[in-house]
Order: sequence, then C-alpha cells, then structure tokens
Amino acid sequence: MKQAENLEPASQPPRPSFGILALVKRVFSGIQPTGDLHIGNYLGAMVNYVALGERLGRDAIYCIVDYHAPTNPAAYDKHLLAQRTFEAALLNIAAGLDPDKVILFVQSHVPEHTELAWVFTTQTPYGDLTRMTQFKDKAAKLESVPAGLLMYPVLMAADILIYKADTVPVGDDQTQHLELAREIARRWNLEYGETFPEPQIYLNPNAPRVPGVDGKAKMSKSVGNTIGLLEDEASIWAKIRTMPDDPARIRLSDPGDPERSVVFKFLSYFAPAELVQVLREEYARRGIGTLVVKELLMQEMMKTLRPIRQRAEGLRAEPARVLDALEDGARRARAIARATLEEVREKFGLLPLPRRQTPA
Amino acid sequence: MKQAENLEPASQPPRPSFGILALVKRVFSGIQPTGDLHIGNYLGAMVNYVALGERLGRDAIYCIVDYHAPTNPAAYDKHLLAQRTFEAALLNIAAGLDPDKVILFVQSHVPEHTELAWVFTTQTPYGDLTRMTQFKDKAAKLESVPAGLLMYPVLMAADILIYKADTVPVGDDQTQHLELAREIARRWNLEYGETFPEPQIYLNPNAPRVPGVDGKAKMSKSVGNTIGLLEDEASIWAKIRTMPDDPARIRLSDPGDPERSVVFKFLSYFAPAELVQVLREEYARRGIGTLVVKELLMQEMMKTLRPIRQRAEGLRAEPARVLDALEDGARRARAIARATLEEVREKFGLLPLPRRQTPA
Repeated sequence: MKQAENLEPASQPPRPSFGILALVKRVFSGIQPTGDLHIGNYLGAMVNYVALGERLGRDAIYCIVDYHAPTNPAAYDKHLLAQRTFEAALLNIAAGLDPDKVILFVQSHVPEHTELAWVFTTQTPYGDLTRMTQFKDKAAKLESVPAGLLMYPVLMAADILIYKADTVPVGDDQTQHLELAREIARRWNLEYGETFPEPQIYLNPNAPRVPGVDGKAKMSKSVGNTIGLLEDEASIWAKIRTMPDDPARIRLSDPGDPERSVVFKFLSYFAPAELVQVLREEYARRGIGTLVVKELLMQEMMKTLRPIRQRAEGLRAEPARVLDALEDGARRARAIARATLEEVREKFGLLPLPRRQTPA
Repeated sequence: MKQAENLEPASQPPRPSFGILALVKRVFSGIQPTGDLHIGNYLGAMVNYVALGERLGRDAIYCIVDYHAPTNPAAYDKHLLAQRTFEAALLNIAAGLDPDKVILFVQSHVPEHTELAWVFTTQTPYGDLTRMTQFKDKAAKLESVPAGLLMYPVLMAADILIYKADTVPVGDDQTQHLELAREIARRWNLEYGETFPEPQIYLNPNAPRVPGVDGKAKMSKSVGNTIGLLEDEASIWAKIRTMPDDPARIRLSDPGDPERSVVFKFLSYFAPAELVQVLREEYARRGIGTLVVKELLMQEMMKTLRPIRQRAEGLRAEPARVLDALEDGARRARAIARATLEEVREKFGLLPLPRRQTPA
C-alpha cells in the first residue's frame, strides 16, 4: 500500500516543528477506536502522525487502543468496537498514514501490552493512581466506577514502554498520565536496572486548537460541533454557510475583522497563505461578503478532504488491504514487544519460558 | 514421569471427602512459589491436590502463581523467584502430584491469564476491590500500597475462569476472593452471554488445621513453627523432642491426656490408627513416657517424608524432568486458555486476531 504518495499537498495543513524532535528515536501514540473522525482530529493529530511517520519510518508506532475503549463505559459498545477499530485504521491510512512506512496495529493483537501492564501494576503505588486528575473527575460522575478507569494509566504506560518509545505526541490532557509513565520507567530502572527511556511528551506547537463550527468550544464529538472527515458535502456546506462571522459586522457595508471571524480561522487551515492574505484585506475593506469567503473555504477544504475520502472509499471496497496492513503492523509490533517483555521477565525474576514454547 | 506410582502409602494422611465433589468437572488451584514447604502445606493442601488429580486427571489444573508473588513485596525477591517457582514444582511432584496425569504449570508461562485479567479489570467495580478484607488488612500495614495488592483478586478470577474451572480447593481465607470471582463470572455471563461457570470453593472437611511444633498457632512459615518437608532429620528430631506434652503431666508418673498433647496430634496425621489407639491407652494409664511416643512419631513421620525427599533428590539431580513437566503443563494449559480467550475476545467485541497471526 502506498497511500502517502497519493496525498495531494493541495493545502497547507500545519506541519509539526522538528526543532525539538531532532533527537527523537521512537514515537508511540495511541489512537482511539472511533470511526467518525473530524477535521479537529485531522489537523490536531493525524497530520502530525503522518509527518512523524515520514521522518521516523518504523520508529513511528501507532496503536489503535481497543483494550482501552471499555474503560470508558459511555463510549464502549460491544457491537461497534470491532467496526470502529477497523474504521480508525481505515481513516488514518486514508488521511495519509502509510502502513508500509510506519507501524500501525491494534492493541489487542499484541497481548504483551496487558502482560507488561500486570508487571507494572505490582510495581505502581495505588495512591499514585487514585491521585490522577482524570480518574477523580471521571469517577465523580459515575455511579459505579470500573477498576479499568483507575488502572488505565498503567496500561498506557505499558503501551509506550514496551516499545521503549522516548516520545509521545499526545494532547496536554495526557500530561499527568505521561508523568506517571515516566515515574514507572524511573522506578523500574532503579530497581531492575536500566531498561526504559523516560518518555517525553511532544506537544506540537503548530497543531491548531480547532474550534467548533459554532466558533465556541474546541471541536469535539461530544459537543456536536464537528465537521466529519467523511461527512457529506451538502452537510458540510450547510455548516459552513451558517458559521458565525465577525459579530460586529451586521451589514455587508460594515468593515469586518478577520481576526474575529471563525470563517477566516478555518480558511487559514486549508487555503494557501497568499489567498488568505488577499481575502483578509478584501474582507477588512468591505470588498467581499462573507458568503464569498465561505464558498472559497468550502472549495479549499474539499481540496484536502476529497482525496482522503476517495482513498477511504477505495479501502472500504477492499477491506483486506486494511486488515493486511494491521496484520503486518501487529507482526512488527510484536517482535519489539516480545523482546522487551523477555528482558522484563528476566529482570523481574520469573522462571524462563519453556525452551520449545516461545510465545508467538 | 510416573511419580504418583512411587508414592508409598506408608501412613494415612487425611484423604479428601469426595461426597460433595461428585459433580466436580474441573478443579483449579494456585500454588504459591515458595521453595520451603512444610508438613502443614503437605497435609492441608498437597495431599488433597494429589487425590483430586487421581480423580480428575487433566481436569485437575495446578498453577504455580509466580505473577501473584510480587503483589506481596514482603515475600517477593527477584533473585529467588525463579528458584522458588522451580522448587514449588519439584516439591509438589515429589509429594505425589503426577504431572503426567494432571496439568501442572507456571502462571507466567500462560500470558492469557494477564490478558483476561485486563478484560475483567474493565468490568469490575473499583469499590468491590477496595472492600476486600485482605486488601484492607494488608494495606493498613504498608506505607506504600502497590496497586497489585488491590488488583490481585481480579488476576485470581482470571486464573480460575480462563479454565472454566467449577471448583477451587482453597483455604477459607480465600472465601471472599472466590466470591468476587463468582461475581465477575455472573456479571460477565449476564452482559456477554453464558461463558463461565460460577466456581465453588471446596473446603476439604478432612484437611487438618496443622498446629505448629509449639502447639500454639497454626503451622506457618511466618510464625517459624514449622517442620519442613525437606528438613534435616536431626533438626526435625530436635523439634519433636522439645514438643510440648500435656501440660498437666509434670512427672512420668502423672497420667497424660492424649487430647491435650501436641505429640498425639501429630501422631494422628502419620501413624496407623491402631498404633495411635494403643499408644493413647498406654499414655493415659502412664504405661509409657512421652519420649517413646515422640520416637514413634519421628519414625512414622519419616515413613511419609523419606520417599518425598528421595524423589525430590532424584528430581534435583535431573532438573530437566521438572522443566519438561512444566513445559508440557504450560502447553496443555495454554490450549484451554486460548480457546476461552478467543471466546471472550469475540463476545467483548474486539476486532478478530489476524488470520495468519494466531497467538501461540
């Protein structure tokens, strides 16, 4: 599969800065198994994944974290999980992640994650887990708190450390969990000898905080203010058409401030910088109405989205291509995971695995 | 290996009653990886394991639970765990457990246990775990409580349920943990369809509560009042020689009450009933001194212990026999564990494992 080559550079989505990434050896990121990704996910994470993959190749490890899904009972549905896992893979490939270059796989296809998570469970203070802000916040809203909500950061630490990844491109809501992973690595290294790097969080300074189509909260599925990557064009246009303009501009004859317009915000993500500049000037000096800007936004946005959905359609017609890619990814991931677990088993003091029964 | 055949029925250790076991299909029991087993372990558990194994064959599943060991930081030692795991296997085989008849294996050689434990972690209320009496008691004594102490009953539930065992011969200190395993099975079956039996605890009514050589607390390594299965004969004799007699019998001429004598307690475990009866009468009517009874106890006890230590020595000279047995056990255990996990994965809603990458 050569997906990345087909990705048209029709627009300039923000590219990650590699300044602080110069020394990165291996990146791990978990991808939630959600089928309906939106342009907030795309601009905020997927573009970054693609760029990191082009830079790091097989040392860019992307894992669809299906074993984490059931720790969120609100999101988990046993009837949809497999389909959502498949869709997450399909969409990431369609968005430009090349499974022939990076490692893309499904978490539950590499059972070494849960095994290492148990080892870490025995080494992690219980109090460290109950102190996690996300645990406290989420637990406060639930009548019955599943133990998975408490233990989830330990599995996340295992996800990262089993690949000895040194860098994790996650959102800042994960800072505390990553600090726990660093603490787990540190404690292990102290007790059992140098084994794991302490993974660094990588907050891409160029990744935009994409607002919702209402211009208010951050674009989010739960708020319902999204533009889906695969959303119908008519539906997208309806959302752009009603997108709020500079609130101070009531009549066409009023001057508009592009800085206060959600439309210009979105335009900056998708349109070439020169076009954006011209339109900003016209808008400010009352040369054009918002509808024209919106039509251009639609046009430019579709230049990015159309090839993604074309590739998605192609992959959907041949699901075996996605499944083969995931199989290949699991095979590659497992080879690394097994080597780490073998090292962990020995240092932990377990009786070696039987000679003839190597775990496969 | 044909160990069981060599077990001389030199004495009458208590045999389990099979009355309520008539309907038992499959037994699972976890064996702690402790190298220095004592006659309390032997009479209280191992004799029972042997008898259940003779009755159930491959449906008697015994697992040396090395992945549980580190949840008890006081007992865990990374330098000793592998050796203790090996010793536990060796001693159980020496004591009569026939690995050619039953399934005897090491927990960490079957990683499906930890994978199922994670699935159960997502389905188990956190509050159910913090309410466990053992957790509360043990946590109260620790400065830093490892999360493993909280999660240990979930791994224990996975240990049992992955084999769909219906019966668990454990001590009554495990009643609450087994009730949790039953609850986990019940909740799963309700949510995902009938999958697991609700395992019953089997408290062997004939298993003695062996006192320590001081006649006070139950025989226990932590109290230091044990007779080791492999202990030196001179050392055993020193312990028996100073064993407390009926405290009311001060002079040889005083009548003795065998019911109040620790020596007679031990004698009843090892000597033929007729011999015990004769000695009781003599003792009560002042016909013999305690030293004679103690000499006979030593003699009868060694009739049970000598063949065990002979077999242990034989196995120690050929460690490959133990390792081969554990390898064979792990292979058999894994075949069952994988089938259960496959069923669980499907019901849980995970994307199926890649076709060519079956877990081995």
